[in-house]
Amino acid sequence: MDDVTQQTEQTSATGRRGRGEGGAAGRRASRTGGGAGPSLPYITRRIGVYEVLDEEGLQLIERNADTILEEIGIEFREDPEALALWKNAGADVRGERVHFPKGLCRELLKTAPKEFTWHARNPERSVRIGGNATVFAPVYGPPFVRDLDGNRRYATIEDFRNFVKLAYMAPSMHSSGGTVCEPVDVPVNKRHLDMVYSHIKYSDKPFMGSVTAPERAEDTVAMAKIVFGDEFVENNCVTLNLINANSPMVFDGTMLGALKVYARHNQASVVSPFILSGAMSPVTVAGTLTQILAEVLAGASLTQLIRKGSPVLFGTFAASISMQSGAPTFGTPEPSLVSYGAAQLARRLGLPFRTGGSLCASKVPDAQAAHESANTLNMTLLAGTNFVLHAAGWLEGGLVSSYEKFMIDQDQLGMMQKMAEGIDLTEEGQALSAIREVGPGSHYLGCAHTQAHFQSAFYRSALADNNSFEQWEIEGQKRVEERANALCRSWLDSYEAPPLDAAIDEALLAYIKDRKDSAPDAFT
Amino acid sequence: MDDVTQQTEQTSATGRRGRGEGGAAGRRASRTGGGAGPSLPYITRRIGVYEVLDEEGLQLIERNADTILEEIGIEFREDPEALALWKNAGADVRGERVHFPKGLCRELLKTAPKEFTWHARNPERSVRIGGNATVFAPVYGPPFVRDLDGNRRYATIEDFRNFVKLAYMAPSMHSSGGTVCEPVDVPVNKRHLDMVYSHIKYSDKPFMGSVTAPERAEDTVAMAKIVFGDEFVENNCVTLNLINANSPMVFDGTMLGALKVYARHNQASVVSPFILSGAMSPVTVAGTLTQILAEVLAGASLTQLIRKGSPVLFGTFAASISMQSGAPTFGTPEPSLVSYGAAQLARRLGLPFRTGGSLCASKVPDAQAAHESANTLNMTLLAGTNFVLHAAGWLEGGLVSSYEKFMIDQDQLGMMQKMAEGIDLTEEGQALSAIREVGPGSHYLGCAHTQAHFQSAFYRSALADNNSFEQWEIEGQKRVEERANALCRSWLDSYEAPPLDAAIDEALLAYIKDRKDSAPDAFT
Repeated sequence: MDDVTQQTEQTSATGRRGRGEGGAAGRRASRTGGGAGPSLPYITRRIGVYEVLDEEGLQLIERNADTILEEIGIEFREDPEALALWKNAGADVRGERVHFPKGLCRELLKTAPKEFTWHARNPERSVRIGGNATVFAPVYGPPFVRDLDGNRRYATIEDFRNFVKLAYMAPSMHSSGGTVCEPVDVPVNKRHLDMVYSHIKYSDKPFMGSVTAPERAEDTVAMAKIVFGDEFVENNCVTLNLINANSPMVFDGTMLGALKVYARHNQASVVSPFILSGAMSPVTVAGTLTQILAEVLAGASLTQLIRKGSPVLFGTFAASISMQSGAPTFGTPEPSLVSYGAAQLARRLGLPFRTGGSLCASKVPDAQAAHESANTLNMTLLAGTNFVLHAAGWLEGGLVSSYEKFMIDQDQLGMMQKMAEGIDLTEEGQALSAIREVGPGSHYLGCAHTQAHFQSAFYRSALADNNSFEQWEIEGQKRVEERANALCRSWLDSYEAPPLDAAIDEALLAYIKDRKDSAPDAFT
Repeated sequence: MDDVTQQTEQTSATGRRGRGEGGAAGRRASRTGGGAGPSLPYITRRIGVYEVLDEEGLQLIERNADTILEEIGIEFREDPEALALWKNAGADVRGERVHFPKGLCRELLKTAPKEFTWHARNPERSVRIGGNATVFAPVYGPPFVRDLDGNRRYATIEDFRNFVKLAYMAPSMHSSGGTVCEPVDVPVNKRHLDMVYSHIKYSDKPFMGSVTAPERAEDTVAMAKIVFGDEFVENNCVTLNLINANSPMVFDGTMLGALKVYARHNQASVVSPFILSGAMSPVTVAGTLTQILAEVLAGASLTQLIRKGSPVLFGTFAASISMQSGAPTFGTPEPSLVSYGAAQLARRLGLPFRTGGSLCASKVPDAQAAHESANTLNMTLLAGTNFVLHAAGWLEGGLVSSYEKFMIDQDQLGMMQKMAEGIDLTEEGQALSAIREVGPGSHYLGCAHTQAHFQSAFYRSALADNNSFEQWEIEGQKRVEERANALCRSWLDSYEAPPLDAAIDEALLAYIKDRKDSAPDAFT
């Protein structure tokens, strides 16, 4: 089901297993959610996209990507099945290296949906992926957290649950995310069960699946089926799954294994070259874009060999390295140019696009963190990105999930959501009546138009301090991360779980117990 | 002289008073400047602009602005000369209120230059204003500073000199600015003399003039003539001058007095509605844009009644207010939409455009300050802004000039300058040779293409810490403002003044002494 309207899909989803309750309860939870405010629907952008390449530049990069695919080829490692599929499709397979005849990948991708719905267990939280939609999801992957007591330490399943709760409460976070942190206190071969369960139990927003092994992807699908039903899952997207290319020009067995499971079950793959320019790609923007396009063409089109019509995204993770130290750098101009260009290439290919977030290299949520994050996030919105991983909480090059930074970032996501509404040109928006009423030399504070609109006029930040210096001094001269810390504690204190059908909950717990009992714990 | 090429103008400027030395000395000073690096020329944008209004929206706002001009009118207060000029030009003048026949202001503005050169005493530092050029200038106006010892206190002339020095040294700061802070230790009726002198003495970048009284504007012009020569000043722009509208829809006698002096001497006025939406303009973006356009049309066209062809900019200072407290807010979505829209209106009018900077409400250079500044600065670049006041150092809603924030901001200006270069699509940029050399599964760190380009490949921040957590911990767990503090001290320690002809220096000092002796000190 690629292109059925959202309304239809929501109706069908609501009809199953009495989940229709979730909507009202979700609204109630949101209203009482410790000042978090009601959850907003995913963004429908009413502003245009910013583009950095003209037609000639785009064609040049597309030609060069075709050259890479044909001449150099892409390696599909540790996966004889993928190699066989490519051979059958007409590619020239030499060992693990696949050379693609001109146009093959583009032809295959014609069956991939331009847009699709990523379903949440609460249909009100389902989101569109593609087109004018933008969906924010939290940070993904950090093994460490920076906690509310200022400690940097390994993440636990308790941290995982907390970040799921925060993502559930944040009004402009449209997805519960995936590996919001690595719960390293749970055995590595079993933690995916607790992670998927946490997303289902503590949030009703759409969630991501496990990609660290094919059997963990199968567990994700099995658990999703307990929630959504077997048939629904096989015909709709209920998980988005991050499939990184092992750049340059390699897909490894783990990622391919997960991609194949998800494509087979009609679940979405986000095929994302993981690029630190200068290390995994050339030091130039155009060279990096060329390699990204080649990698995505190869990886994304494989999903269509597995199952035609299965959803797949054009992903891009773009950063650079410091040429002095080799360390990754974020929020700098070159990755922004890469992402803007990649968004254009994705649109031409007709695939939903993923990039950006609130990326930074800083170790603390200071001005460096904010500048890097804001540079990345502004680009993310204006590029027309459809799916935004790492939209909040990312710190220290992705090694750390930060509670304080999550709160600061989610406030910025609210600003982006407001920005995306564009300019109201209705008569009320034009406000000529207000200008006539006020006239030269007066002020608008009390005029009728201002009174009528002051509730909704401007984005209201819960964290920015706009008071006078004197007021700020009296209130303890707090920096924004101190206010973020307090707000985070208040959210977690007032968290209320969205309702979950008891039978579903029991079935999930039984599945998890069964799977956990079936193998010894592993920690490496 | 509106449209003579930059090369011609520079040649003519170099020919006067032996100022040709400045270039080489400036380069020398830059090379040895405490790690500041060489000054970069003003930005010539090779990337496109981002637009938020379509043709229909633009026409709607233009029609509504015409309605304001005709029906409501604009007040020109305490200035009979301006009123007489308007009457002569065919406007309907009632008291101090001027009503403009449809099209009058646009017709008058046809003689204003689309682009012009703002000359520096060192011709290598002269900048273009308009077209694809972007020029950064430091914060303007704060009575307070946050100094390097962490104190918030009234600014002094020593602080003023320091910020001029920092602006001189910052590679991507293209102008010395104007009131980089208010030196409140100097009598209010004389401080403009010390301010203008400081810009000439401690920097060789283009500077702004005094606008706080007509005679202070005359002093600015007189001092500029000592440096540039009488005839050169009368025929070229050597000062840019900030003329704020007293929004809504009022120009006051002080601003009009300064505008008239500068226009008469062919110096540039930046006619800028000072807008906190909700107080000085409607709470909506479209309403605010309409009022801004009307105010600029009225104020800017007055310059052409004074002297046809005198340079004038379409200025916009856009912020909002908190509807709870009335406090100004910065870096929020609505002012960004206002500025993007105003840039479009300015381009249609054929006037160079000013907006943006690194604005924030935060009291300290924390993540709030950085988010607000970055949101504003990214917009500023993508809007295609020609002149950017407050590009570095602004803190606390413009009440404070911050040394640390200046350093952090100027680093971000470097990123914007790099971003504006766009994407290199040459063969070297395409980097196919590198991709062929490296191939799947390897890395680009040592390849020939990387080696050839690693010096210039990526913007290098002197402030961002991209090291490992462990390294950062060993180095004292410093926040970016601590690194900025250290870098600022090192710049000021290593500052070397650009050469200034001794005869010019003496003449300036004699002029200042004469003017200071001519009146008693005033402090209010």
